[in-house]
Amino acid sequence: MFDRFLFVFPVKPGMTEILKTLYTMSFIDKDFMLQTKTARKLYHEHAENMPIIDYHCHLVPQQIAENIQFRDITQLWLVDGHYGDHYKWRAMRANGVSEDYLTGGKYNSWETFQKWAETVPYTMRNPLYHWTHLELSRVFGIDKLLSPKTAREIFDECNAKLATEEFRGQALIRKFGVEVVCTTDDPADDLRYHKMILEKPFGTKVIPAWRPDKAMAIEDPKSYKEYLVKLGEAADIMIDSYTDLIEALQRRHDFFASMGCKLSDHGLETFYAADYKQIEIEAIFKMVLLGRRVSELELNKFRSAFLHDMAVMDAKAGWAQQFHVGAIRNNNSKMFGLVGPDTGFDAIHDLPTAAAGHKFFDRLASEDALAKTILYCLNPKDNEVMMTMAYTFNDGTFPGKMQFGSGWWFLDQEVGMRRQMDALSVLGLFSRFVGMLTDSRSFISYPRHEYFRRILCDVLGKDVEEGKLPASELDFIGKMVEDISYNNAKNYFNF
Amino acid sequence: MFDRFLFVFPVKPGMTEILKTLYTMSFIDKDFMLQTKTARKLYHEHAENMPIIDYHCHLVPQQIAENIQFRDITQLWLVDGHYGDHYKWRAMRANGVSEDYLTGGKYNSWETFQKWAETVPYTMRNPLYHWTHLELSRVFGIDKLLSPKTAREIFDECNAKLATEEFRGQALIRKFGVEVVCTTDDPADDLRYHKMILEKPFGTKVIPAWRPDKAMAIEDPKSYKEYLVKLGEAADIMIDSYTDLIEALQRRHDFFASMGCKLSDHGLETFYAADYKQIEIEAIFKMVLLGRRVSELELNKFRSAFLHDMAVMDAKAGWAQQFHVGAIRNNNSKMFGLVGPDTGFDAIHDLPTAAAGHKFFDRLASEDALAKTILYCLNPKDNEVMMTMAYTFNDGTFPGKMQFGSGWWFLDQEVGMRRQMDALSVLGLFSRFVGMLTDSRSFISYPRHEYFRRILCDVLGKDVEEGKLPASELDFIGKMVEDISYNNAKNYFNF
Amino acid sequence: MFDRFLFVFPVKPGMTEILKTLYTMSFIDKDFMLQTKTARKLYHEHAENMPIIDYHCHLVPQQIAENIQFRDITQLWLVDGHYGDHYKWRAMRANGVSEDYLTGGKYNSWETFQKWAETVPYTMRNPLYHWTHLELSRVFGIDKLLSPKTAREIFDECNAKLATEEFRGQALIRKFGVEVVCTTDDPADDLRYHKMILEKPFGTKVIPAWRPDKAMAIEDPKSYKEYLVKLGEAADIMIDSYTDLIEALQRRHDFFASMGCKLSDHGLETFYAADYKQIEIEAIFKMVLLGRRVSELELNKFRSAFLHDMAVMDAKAGWAQQFHVGAIRNNNSKMFGLVGPDTGFDAIHDLPTAAAGHKFFDRLASEDALAKTILYCLNPKDNEVMMTMAYTFNDGTFPGKMQFGSGWWFLDQEVGMRRQMDALSVLGLFSRFVGMLTDSRSFISYPRHEYFRRILCDVLGKDVEEGKLPASELDFIGKMVEDISYNNAKNYFNF
Repeated sequence: MFDRFLFVFPVKPGMTEILKTLYTMSFIDKDFMLQTKTARKLYHEHAENMPIIDYHCHLVPQQIAENIQFRDITQLWLVDGHYGDHYKWRAMRANGVSEDYLTGGKYNSWETFQKWAETVPYTMRNPLYHWTHLELSRVFGIDKLLSPKTAREIFDECNAKLATEEFRGQALIRKFGVEVVCTTDDPADDLRYHKMILEKPFGTKVIPAWRPDKAMAIEDPKSYKEYLVKLGEAADIMIDSYTDLIEALQRRHDFFASMGCKLSDHGLETFYAADYKQIEIEAIFKMVLLGRRVSELELNKFRSAFLHDMAVMDAKAGWAQQFHVGAIRNNNSKMFGLVGPDTGFDAIHDLPTAAAGHKFFDRLASEDALAKTILYCLNPKDNEVMMTMAYTFNDGTFPGKMQFGSGWWFLDQEVGMRRQMDALSVLGLFSRFVGMLTDSRSFISYPRHEYFRRILCDVLGKDVEEGKLPASELDFIGKMVEDISYNNAKNYFNF
Repeated sequence: MFDRFLFVFPVKPGMTEILKTLYTMSFIDKDFMLQTKTARKLYHEHAENMPIIDYHCHLVPQQIAENIQFRDITQLWLVDGHYGDHYKWRAMRANGVSEDYLTGGKYNSWETFQKWAETVPYTMRNPLYHWTHLELSRVFGIDKLLSPKTAREIFDECNAKLATEEFRGQALIRKFGVEVVCTTDDPADDLRYHKMILEKPFGTKVIPAWRPDKAMAIEDPKSYKEYLVKLGEAADIMIDSYTDLIEALQRRHDFFASMGCKLSDHGLETFYAADYKQIEIEAIFKMVLLGRRVSELELNKFRSAFLHDMAVMDAKAGWAQQFHVGAIRNNNSKMFGLVGPDTGFDAIHDLPTAAAGHKFFDRLASEDALAKTILYCLNPKDNEVMMTMAYTFNDGTFPGKMQFGSGWWFLDQEVGMRRQMDALSVLGLFSRFVGMLTDSRSFISYPRHEYFRRILCDVLGKDVEEGKLPASELDFIGKMVEDISYNNAKNYFNF
Repeated sequence: MFDRFLFVFPVKPGMTEILKTLYTMSFIDKDFMLQTKTARKLYHEHAENMPIIDYHCHLVPQQIAENIQFRDITQLWLVDGHYGDHYKWRAMRANGVSEDYLTGGKYNSWETFQKWAETVPYTMRNPLYHWTHLELSRVFGIDKLLSPKTAREIFDECNAKLATEEFRGQALIRKFGVEVVCTTDDPADDLRYHKMILEKPFGTKVIPAWRPDKAMAIEDPKSYKEYLVKLGEAADIMIDSYTDLIEALQRRHDFFASMGCKLSDHGLETFYAADYKQIEIEAIFKMVLLGRRVSELELNKFRSAFLHDMAVMDAKAGWAQQFHVGAIRNNNSKMFGLVGPDTGFDAIHDLPTAAAGHKFFDRLASEDALAKTILYCLNPKDNEVMMTMAYTFNDGTFPGKMQFGSGWWFLDQEVGMRRQMDALSVLGLFSRFVGMLTDSRSFISYPRHEYFRRILCDVLGKDVEEGKLPASELDFIGKMVEDISYNNAKNYFNF
């Protein structure tokens, strides 16, 4: 089948290296995820050393301000105060780990960690496998694979390190060159921990972000009314009408702005853009104040009005607004009763988004009240809908004004990122993408920026080596990597 | 462009082989579909020789029990008793073959085969092209490509072989190392052929599976009432109410269990989880008994109740339940009138599934009545919805309790399988996957297990060689291949 | 890590070339997009020189008939009479280019071109980047990359060429070997320019295509009634009833047929297949004549009747019918008010299509009135639905009678084409595909056929080299490339 002869190979400089790598990719080494020479060049020369702007995350401001020292790796990774890592819990439940070790009675630092160590090898091909080992490597300098065999030594080594000053909350953030962190905050929040940080800065800007989901949540009148009291106190106003509500929110919006806030965020099942009259909204609001449940139609009208008014507020303030669309939450009511929300029982919804979404943004555009906007979808079937929706409202006032955001939550993994990058590219301007965010509660999830950048460079490097992008433009492409890694977000949010 | 010089290449052991293969992949040889050295190693060392558990298929029990001898390859491949291979028929119609050769008057063993042989080259890139040649190769030892040129010799050679003992039904099943076959059976079935097989075993367990679709089909009162008579006779009960229906089904469920049954199956357009009261269901049932058509709302309530009660039955019995969701059937009424259902006129539906699906499983979970469950979708847009829905209900009681099933029907092909494997991987535990099933009526479709395993190994092999999985863990990855090929199904169904 | 030794490589003839290419793909050279040796062979031997049949485009017949001479490259590329290139405008707006340069007051040939040149590097990974450079290369023989640096010289060189005879409209069409062009025409159109071309032929057949969208647009009674006057005059009939409408359209249909028309086209949000009675349709039509707006239900009934009657007309005439499904249009009402439709403010819709689509085609099939049909979807989530819907109605009367059309509009790019080709392949007969069309208003978009053919050959070449298609069948596969490039369309439309 083969003629055997001495292989005299006409070789282009650099080719040896290419061929070498065909069978030498190692797991989580310096060239992790970078399949081509060009990808490696792009990453090491243009991505690796860019600072991080983590413009959307769920870090707890108090933990930052108080410079948290973690009790141990189990607290940091698996059960962190009142919350745990729902990604890991979900995987562990699927692997047959009893709830006792997670939220139940058997919780014990070492045993719960052991259960996670048993689960890790079973997460191969899941982002948890990469995240876990990236965090061990990049945060703790541990290049062993986590498994039952290595569990004890890794547990001990991590815990020893976590007991030192360099592994307290602020040092962990600084370690990764994070320039800005945006937390996610309720309008009623007094931002006292943001003030503490401002007064005692540690090298990373920590800015609040505005998430008024609770102010829209009229579906449960009882807890809504409790929330209104809290919000009213924060805004120093009695909230007796929808007009009062908006006035209270405006005051808090101004306060957030004074604290450096530059962006808002909304978690939605889908968009809402029903027709309504102001008088209807006031009437619906009154009903809720009387403790009555409203109909689906009324709910839709109220949400439509509320989101519109929030968007106008953001536009006036010159903020960017984010919409996270498409989760179906708290689906397991038994577990919701036992352990509450955000514990691994949410999923991907499949509602339509195009008609209401376009109507929503059209109204804002018509009123010249459309802020910079980032749309995230949780269902990848919506990638192209979201992307073309966003781009329908670009108006030439700012490059990349309307953005299709990076793979969110369940889509924050290699397949999801590649699909997002491809949809963004073929339907718009990849070069103007504001890039990655962690959306995480963890102090050590910053390697996800590294992961994103590696995939970004791999995508572009492959295109160059396949002749789909011109190799002669490597400088521009390198600049593009720097922009997507850092510059675009910096210019976009104007922190 | 190239400097010419002697190429002194620093080579890693094994690399030569990798490079060799870049241009030497052959069609359906021993390394078919295996693009990397690691893929080949995984396949040949861990997949190739694992037994088969075909936990969902449509083999006709009578044909197994009577150890069918096929008249010829046309009967086996194209027209098999009252049924034909709708995949092939569909392709032939699209290729301009007149219905006469399929279900019509011109049917003639050789001519119909000839028409198929003419069509085969035109199926390139369709799974039929691979299935056809895998079956010729693995079943008949014929490595020629089927085309008009080879049609006669292949026809003759196949027919000669089919006339021998080694090509009767039971031998064909044994040939592929099939340990267990689960057929698909109606609750009213007396399972006499399963008994025959039990009494005269041939080396492969043949177990019934419970498919109560007809017991839910109240949309046509006339045929439903006929069915009730049959079911009532089988269960020795007069069915005059919904309560009677459930009682009859419970008796048959017990009988199926006594015959070794371990799993159920439902074919649904989407999920049904309307609110209902028992008294409403009884009233709807009475209307149907009176021969009246029910409204969409009533239909939804009835289906919601029925499916819930079936699921509770499965949970109590410790069975696994399967849901095949998303076909739109019998769309071509002219052809339905001529040739009936399941003849190639079905398609992929696009109803939403998330809201009702979650509500359905939530109710079961709340009642502690959620059996092991496998969800299959026909529309690939639902992959992520189904996958996250399933994983929302894992409860730590069994590894991989909630499963997202392998590419079904239209999705049972390379692209579909890869997408299913990727969705499963990035959103859950690939390692816990129960793997492949044929879902076929054919005695020679077992090479689809081989096809699946080759793709499985190719996926994992590529990940290893690209450094996305650690090469050091090849033993674990090999074990994972064995698990997905066989062990997981064995443990899951507990046959 | 590596043993260093002289590499004695057992090499198969041809392999050197394969290896060479791993790092030598160049941008838009002769092997652009062709990643394997087989792909190159297929392209250069079977695709490159096939004539073009552009069976669906939006060229303006007057511009063809009058053999337009373009004022400059800005008119040709960016602003062409009353219309502009919405793809480019959309990208420019997203890149922060003010509307002034596009549709507004600052428009100036050089400055607008400059803004486009600034935008081009930012379109990397978008099809515009490839289209732009393919057009520069294939039309103007310019192999420079467009950027601010090269803008002036490219502007001047293009303009100099556009002033010559060889760059007038007809010469541009002939240059690309275009055998047939089908324009898109309203039933009321007198086709005078088609007659002019017939009388003074230039080597390419220019045939009208039937697009009766306006005759269905009753949602705006005022403009609809104006349209009816125009249509009535063309058909020489007073349109006072739905029956009159159909009669008028039948006369125009006959006239179009006499002018060589062989296919129709419909732009739809989704399919319509409501139940209706003729008397209801007449009543709805009367209401519209009275200037009244109709309800959603009435609209649905009217559209269902109208589309059905149009389909019957096509079937009787032996034409092919096309359905372009899934755009949501004119979403930005502010910009619609300023610059009108088709200016870059449309997007991808997400309505369901399966149920109504099947019902629509089922009725036609039952009446033996189903013409050859091509379905295009704009939302890639519908690929599999459209594909299986089409194939459910193949009836063996013509190979590939029911087609799933090439990636349309937003999906007319590499990712979209590959997904369409894969869906078509795994769910049907790729070999019977009628292939590419430009759907373009531009005289120089024919390189999109080249782009399509390169991707087609890359897809097949990779399959061969990976052993998924037999290398021994390269003749058949080459024939398949020729068929998809040209022969299938030629046979299908029977021009």
